[in-house]
Amino acid sequence: MKSELTEIASAVRNAVLPVLGKASASEIVGRGVDGAPSYGVDAVAEKAAMDAVERLALRLNILSEESAYVDKGAAETLVIDPIDGSRNAINNLPFFSVSLAVGSRNLSGIKYGLVMNIVTGDVYYGEKGKGATCNEGPIHTRLFDEKKSVFLVYVGTNASANAYDIMRKSSIVRSFGSAALEMCLIASGSADVFYMRSVDSEHALRIVDIAASSLILREAGGEVFDMTGNIMDMRFDMADRKSVIAVGDRSMRRLSL
Amino acid sequence: MKSELTEIASAVRNAVLPVLGKASASEIVGRGVDGAPSYGVDAVAEKAAMDAVERLALRLNILSEESAYVDKGAAETLVIDPIDGSRNAINNLPFFSVSLAVGSRNLSGIKYGLVMNIVTGDVYYGEKGKGATCNEGPIHTRLFDEKKSVFLVYVGTNASANAYDIMRKSSIVRSFGSAALEMCLIASGSADVFYMRSVDSEHALRIVDIAASSLILREAGGEVFDMTGNIMDMRFDMADRKSVIAVGDRSMRRLSL
Repeated sequence: MKSELTEIASAVRNAVLPVLGKASASEIVGRGVDGAPSYGVDAVAEKAAMDAVERLALRLNILSEESAYVDKGAAETLVIDPIDGSRNAINNLPFFSVSLAVGSRNLSGIKYGLVMNIVTGDVYYGEKGKGATCNEGPIHTRLFDEKKSVFLVYVGTNASANAYDIMRKSSIVRSFGSAALEMCLIASGSADVFYMRSVDSEHALRIVDIAASSLILREAGGEVFDMTGNIMDMRFDMADRKSVIAVGDRSMRRLSL
Repeated sequence: MKSELTEIASAVRNAVLPVLGKASASEIVGRGVDGAPSYGVDAVAEKAAMDAVERLALRLNILSEESAYVDKGAAETLVIDPIDGSRNAINNLPFFSVSLAVGSRNLSGIKYGLVMNIVTGDVYYGEKGKGATCNEGPIHTRLFDEKKSVFLVYVGTNASANAYDIMRKSSIVRSFGSAALEMCLIASGSADVFYMRSVDSEHALRIVDIAASSLILREAGGEVFDMTGNIMDMRFDMADRKSVIAVGDRSMRRLSL
């Protein structure tokens, strides 16, 4: 499945790069299935992904951020976020990704996951039970060392007040704006925790955002928890939304409580 | 001066990219002139910059983050930060830059400034009185629109409590970790404000961090203020440290007060 997912991701990247910074990229062109605005750059990415899926004649149902569920009667589903970090893309802030995952029923049923950094072309890939890679090289999470800690934290008006407490616990705190890619940075040992706690469920994450990156992180040695400290699971349902704490070192789980 | 600065920046980028993610990149190899640790990747960048300056036989004094002031008896000084965002580089977080500026005496005496995004190769350039560009195309700041606001805010244990108040005023808040590059994102109209207020002067910014980006931002229509609301100036002195608010639209100046 790796070559197929890479081909879809590359098609998205090739379609998106030329429209960055253009006025058409940031025009609202519709609404996603969850009611969130879809921008020009999202539509370009979605079309490129769908065209690539068709070209590859993949026998998979499709669950995408931008369109309704497509049931092809297949056993497995392709879970797509054409652009994770849309607000970065529409503002031409250089950090966003395409997220592609294949599996059945729920997050724990994901078998293959690929996240491509659209800006750099870096490819993160995970296969259930077979580990995770970045650009073909194996990746692993790192052990937490308080003196060298790096926290990735979602902030802004839609972030929970807890996010601001978490931020004060690390000298290096970043907020990059693409959950899928930030979770891959935990997987590759560049950071210790990704903390995304929203003020309400309307602004929390969906299966399309974290399907691929959760598998990649788990295969690299990390774990994803919900805000009750339980191992995260989610249905293949765009109405299911959760806040997330993703860690490289499981001892960090306590941050969620 | 543009071709010379581009050549120096490219030399830094070509030297840095191959060491990213290697253990040698994050080893502490010494102390900068201000006592801050220098990492392997900083040393590689510094050497590449100095070698390029020598090759180009530039008649300029040199003020660098990593080494002592070099007085060549020239009228102007090259102000270098070989890697702005060192902590991103040592952790392989994909957002850091090289900052190069030429001028005399103080920030307002800077005549040429260049910032290169080391990850993507994007080049931001400003020349006093002649405007600013990104990859040859002219750039301009944007007018502030509260509904579409994007704030870039420095956070973590060394950030002032005010930073947390500022963050709650925008739905889109990012913290990317390279002041020079974040100020260029204000210059190019990708964001509205860069707010870097440290808890003490020891953690504030120095002339090497903002020499180039301040000129680029001003030439693109923005302004840089200190925390008293005055237009920022700084001496060519590594002991001079200040917190910074950089804005695209001058009406945002009130945020600093």
